[in-house]
Amino acid sequence: MNIANYLKQKQAIIETALNDCLPPASTRPALLHEAMRYSVLNGGKRIRPILCMAAAEPFRVPSQTVISAAIAVELFHCSTLVHDDLPCMDDDDLRRGMPTCHIKFGEANAVLAGDALMIHAFQMLAETGQSRLSLELAKAAGSLGVIAGQVEDLAAEGRAPNASLIDFIHMNKTAVLIRAAVRMGAIAGGAKEDELENLSSFGEKTGMVFQIIDDILDETSSDEVLGKPTGSDLELHKMTYPAVHGMKAAHAEVKKLTREAIAALDMLRRETSALRAIAEYLMDREF
Amino acid sequence: MNIANYLKQKQAIIETALNDCLPPASTRPALLHEAMRYSVLNGGKRIRPILCMAAAEPFRVPSQTVISAAIAVELFHCSTLVHDDLPCMDDDDLRRGMPTCHIKFGEANAVLAGDALMIHAFQMLAETGQSRLSLELAKAAGSLGVIAGQVEDLAAEGRAPNASLIDFIHMNKTAVLIRAAVRMGAIAGGAKEDELENLSSFGEKTGMVFQIIDDILDETSSDEVLGKPTGSDLELHKMTYPAVHGMKAAHAEVKKLTREAIAALDMLRRETSALRAIAEYLMDREF
Repeated sequence: MNIANYLKQKQAIIETALNDCLPPASTRPALLHEAMRYSVLNGGKRIRPILCMAAAEPFRVPSQTVISAAIAVELFHCSTLVHDDLPCMDDDDLRRGMPTCHIKFGEANAVLAGDALMIHAFQMLAETGQSRLSLELAKAAGSLGVIAGQVEDLAAEGRAPNASLIDFIHMNKTAVLIRAAVRMGAIAGGAKEDELENLSSFGEKTGMVFQIIDDILDETSSDEVLGKPTGSDLELHKMTYPAVHGMKAAHAEVKKLTREAIAALDMLRRETSALRAIAEYLMDREF
Repeated sequence: MNIANYLKQKQAIIETALNDCLPPASTRPALLHEAMRYSVLNGGKRIRPILCMAAAEPFRVPSQTVISAAIAVELFHCSTLVHDDLPCMDDDDLRRGMPTCHIKFGEANAVLAGDALMIHAFQMLAETGQSRLSLELAKAAGSLGVIAGQVEDLAAEGRAPNASLIDFIHMNKTAVLIRAAVRMGAIAGGAKEDELENLSSFGEKTGMVFQIIDDILDETSSDEVLGKPTGSDLELHKMTYPAVHGMKAAHAEVKKLTREAIAALDMLRRETSALRAIAEYLMDREF
């Protein structure tokens, strides 16, 4: 399997679906729809929707439902980025090398564009008619998931390194949503309960890897490669995995988690080469 | 029908359901759950969930689904209030006589508490298993509904009075959600399509009345009665119905819309005395 080609092919499908699912920029209120499109159609890596689609593949049910689920996860993810970048949160001016939403459209419109993207994610899922998909996203996204991670992440700024706290933050801020992306793909594919369990474990571990690599790259990469200011975690005194455990342990943890994620896949006894290749790609990614 | 007793009885049911549906304030992250509960359990009038429950009554199906729909609409409504009060939006320090969420918990937590309440609304609906309810809320709430109204409301501040603009703002910011509340009650009750049409019309007109009365009260009532600073619309140069059409026309429009709303109810040929009494109550309310 050529992972670069696979990712490129899925990205193209996802870009088209994202573009098609959002109202045209000319739709009233034009400024809001421009802000929504700007915050979504910005060259993101689309890891979450790709994982969602890949998680349906072992079940051989190419269906519109999987695309809707994939797109919904990405729309929600983009909404959190818009809100995270706000001055009262991480106060970031750049994302993927471009001005953030509030810099370009003003703070009020950024709050509202984030809200509208969040709502649009649930609209996409409602349109599938599968309430279970909405339930997965809501549980992963809400006050016991992504939002919990974000609250504790902000509260942790400047506090002493703490292993259990960083684990809580990474699990909720990142891993829970990536796990949900994988679960939603599997549910759309019609996975049985035990299969869903194995894929949950794969998703969670892959999500943790994704976040630890993010932390590592923030310290070791350059602004040009990442398209955002590196070293910003240090500057904000963010609690990162390397800050708590050291860089060597961070790399070792990434390897261990990836091994465990792939072991969970093997338990499935289905064709999961795409998920495996994505996990290996995420472990080695440089941006 | 004694409307005061009816409202009090429904409010009690709704307060209990709101209290029960939110995680306890001690749940990690405690600050987030405190902020969510503070922003919801604050003595709101609960007009939207009451209308939702009342709209199911003609169909005689007292069901848990109706309560979930009612609660979801109120949670979403509360989330919009938290975000509307933010410094970058209406910059309000008081709501119902108490410090607003961002004054009490900080701006970042207010953004995140609003997000979490929005997500929780969709979780409540997902748990009913009726995707159609999620779809109703999403369509009413999103970039072609409440959020559209909010964007144009902010953009209209300080602009010259304009009848078609105020109509767009009131329709989207307020009437569309109240219409959705009524529709969701009717859907949970199992209304047929033509019945749903009549109730939609009732909900929309009642929603417009609600907003016009809000505008009137902002100009004519006192801080003590409303529990929020009156005259704030004038101060922010908000575009209000009386500012565009004059106070006399505002009162006349309220009467006309209420008559039309009740006429739509009469078309139903079902027992709708509660909806009728609520519409008449809203027309005459003084706070």
